[in-house]
Amino acid sequence: MSLITLTTDFGTKDHFVGAVKGAIYSELEDAKIVDITHEITPFNITETAYILKNSYKSFPKGTIHIIGVDSELSEDNKHIALELDGHFFVCPDNGLISMIASEINPTKIVEINIHDRIESSFPVLDVFVQVACFIARGGNLTVIGREITEFKKLVEIQPKVNQAQNQIIGGVIYIDNYGNVITNISKKMFNDIGKGRAFKATARRYSFNTIFTKYNEITGKNSHKSHQFDGQKLAIFNTAGFLEIAIYRSNLDTVGGASSLLGLEYRDSVIIEFINDSKPDFSPLS
Amino acid sequence: MSLITLTTDFGTKDHFVGAVKGAIYSELEDAKIVDITHEITPFNITETAYILKNSYKSFPKGTIHIIGVDSELSEDNKHIALELDGHFFVCPDNGLISMIASEINPTKIVEINIHDRIESSFPVLDVFVQVACFIARGGNLTVIGREITEFKKLVEIQPKVNQAQNQIIGGVIYIDNYGNVITNISKKMFNDIGKGRAFKATARRYSFNTIFTKYNEITGKNSHKSHQFDGQKLAIFNTAGFLEIAIYRSNLDTVGGASSLLGLEYRDSVIIEFINDSKPDFSPLS
Amino acid sequence: MSLITLTTDFGTKDHFVGAVKGAIYSELEDAKIVDITHEITPFNITETAYILKNSYKSFPKGTIHIIGVDSELSEDNKHIALELDGHFFVCPDNGLISMIASEINPTKIVEINIHDRIESSFPVLDVFVQVACFIARGGNLTVIGREITEFKKLVEIQPKVNQAQNQIIGGVIYIDNYGNVITNISKKMFNDIGKGRAFKATARRYSFNTIFTKYNEITGKNSHKSHQFDGQKLAIFNTAGFLEIAIYRSNLDTVGGASSLLGLEYRDSVIIEFINDSKPDFSPLS
Repeated sequence: MSLITLTTDFGTKDHFVGAVKGAIYSELEDAKIVDITHEITPFNITETAYILKNSYKSFPKGTIHIIGVDSELSEDNKHIALELDGHFFVCPDNGLISMIASEINPTKIVEINIHDRIESSFPVLDVFVQVACFIARGGNLTVIGREITEFKKLVEIQPKVNQAQNQIIGGVIYIDNYGNVITNISKKMFNDIGKGRAFKATARRYSFNTIFTKYNEITGKNSHKSHQFDGQKLAIFNTAGFLEIAIYRSNLDTVGGASSLLGLEYRDSVIIEFINDSKPDFSPLS
Repeated sequence: MSLITLTTDFGTKDHFVGAVKGAIYSELEDAKIVDITHEITPFNITETAYILKNSYKSFPKGTIHIIGVDSELSEDNKHIALELDGHFFVCPDNGLISMIASEINPTKIVEINIHDRIESSFPVLDVFVQVACFIARGGNLTVIGREITEFKKLVEIQPKVNQAQNQIIGGVIYIDNYGNVITNISKKMFNDIGKGRAFKATARRYSFNTIFTKYNEITGKNSHKSHQFDGQKLAIFNTAGFLEIAIYRSNLDTVGGASSLLGLEYRDSVIIEFINDSKPDFSPLS
Repeated sequence: MSLITLTTDFGTKDHFVGAVKGAIYSELEDAKIVDITHEITPFNITETAYILKNSYKSFPKGTIHIIGVDSELSEDNKHIALELDGHFFVCPDNGLISMIASEINPTKIVEINIHDRIESSFPVLDVFVQVACFIARGGNLTVIGREITEFKKLVEIQPKVNQAQNQIIGGVIYIDNYGNVITNISKKMFNDIGKGRAFKATARRYSFNTIFTKYNEITGKNSHKSHQFDGQKLAIFNTAGFLEIAIYRSNLDTVGGASSLLGLEYRDSVIIEFINDSKPDFSPLS
């Protein structure tokens, strides 16, 4: 059995996803195909990087991940295949593996070079499926590509830390299904830089000095009255390990989500300032 | 082979669904995973109950249904696993099995108690997947939970019948993909209370005294001219057995659906009054 | 193993898709079910025809395609099953196979006649699943239906060519996930009629005389500066072989897509005029 995942900006209305799955089954009758998502904002590499990082690890080692976002071949946008953390990725070289590869180095990367044999304006269907099925059958990456050592890095995805090590300047990288605003500031970076100091975090005109680890910590000991807290704002390290600004039990159809309520959008800044020689203080988001 | 279904409010853009599927395949290589839906309105228990009731029965006995809607663990929101009608359900105890369990009693219910072993802010991934895979491998519910007899009921989901047995006060519980408005009044209840009497049903300023069983009954003998009836309103007992107020061949992009056209929303009242000593009369929705 | 695809206008929120999949697994434990799409605009036959044509071919021969769009049975809307190009289709006879069948004749068509045994207001669940599983088990079409030779054609889907053979009048049949506008004018027809002549194509107040075959041809030799071209309009023969009016790297959330930017909608005309005794000239869309 081969497990192949798909992450694209194709949407689920057009024929693209169906055609890709049909092509995989035509090559590998017993494949298991899993949709990670097809709802990436068209051509958005940052979103793709975030979603990939947080989904790939749950899959068994050996899983092959096809990523079709901004994948038209050009001088500036080569196709690559790589092995990393026991997983395989087939994708354009446009930075979308930056977030994964910032923590774990790829074991092997190749620039795919089978294009001379394939005339295509739909590379996910014509090239990526071929490569994925080749890998699934146990093929070696170097047969379908030229080994390389460099791949494109997404610069904007990394927060900046000042020289005095008391400020992190991050940004919004993703708005989730609940309207929650996710930043590129990881819990690990926060702890490494903060070292337990008190802090003030600021996003637009909102600031907060407490970060929860579960949404319903906001209710304190009143969890039986938890609905009283619906719609309150809070900061949390989410299940992916990133700082998130959320609305408790948000509903985009009624109370709205953090993005709309707080006016926070993709690429907005989120700044954390640590206060020297202090211990953290716990008070709610204000 | 194990069949596992997923019903959540995660949406299909975020990494949540992919991560959950990866975790299941990591535990059970030969699982079959079926998405019921991930488009539940966030935290909406009534919608979940309606969708579950109308989908679970088509699956083979032994299917395991994971439901992830408002599933963060708290004093007030325990996690449960149950066996009912030969199916297994792993879900929070927040009322979402009310509609199923109102007709068929669970054979066994346990309050899941493996949380001390699992630190999690993403219980569907960390707890429900574990439980579902345990059941899939033939595990006994009492190993992963403490047997209980009570579970939370959703009160609003049941229509009220007056003492004279000539009035049903129901409400809108769901708006479907076509904009059709679905009430909590079942055909069974309608027949049990109505006993063949004529009736007047009222929803906002609309009333009707005929309920169809197929959409195109509205065309009468003119089915070859059926497009002339496009956009007309009608009441029907839908395929799920509930009273639905619909627009014939509705199109939300053009003519609109029943919800927008008639101004009917989730939780609006729908009232049926039966007329004593009468026989039903057939005239169209007016 | 049986491969069954689903193409419907059910959406992915309601219980319909889940119920259909459950019913298939109840009949055929080892089925593989692939969603082509459930996002067809309700009752839109043209969209369905376009999507089917462009997805079915990727699947292995023997795949069974269930199509549930406007499938309520009536005098005017029979249910059919057919074999075509080694594939099986189970669908209403409302024109949705026109685009496929315009190029390849069905080997066999039957009008399904098992309805007397099945009382149903949800024919995809109750009838189409039965038929598909019967075919999957090797059943002969003539057992579940009466052989017929005619099926309904969708007239609007064919562009018109004038008598002088220098004009094609086509129309918009589909708006894709990127907002690109797809016409019913195929590359084959364009070449057959045009015979290499120069042309002027017009859609609303836009005209163009170059049609690309890859999106990034617009960047010419400047592919390393490709982002400078974001948002520019272009005409292309898309991967499905149809004339498409597109915006380079369109983003519906920011710059918009061709449909909104150029005001082009479903059913709008697109006209190509060929210039006698000419050679094609290459200049950008203006």
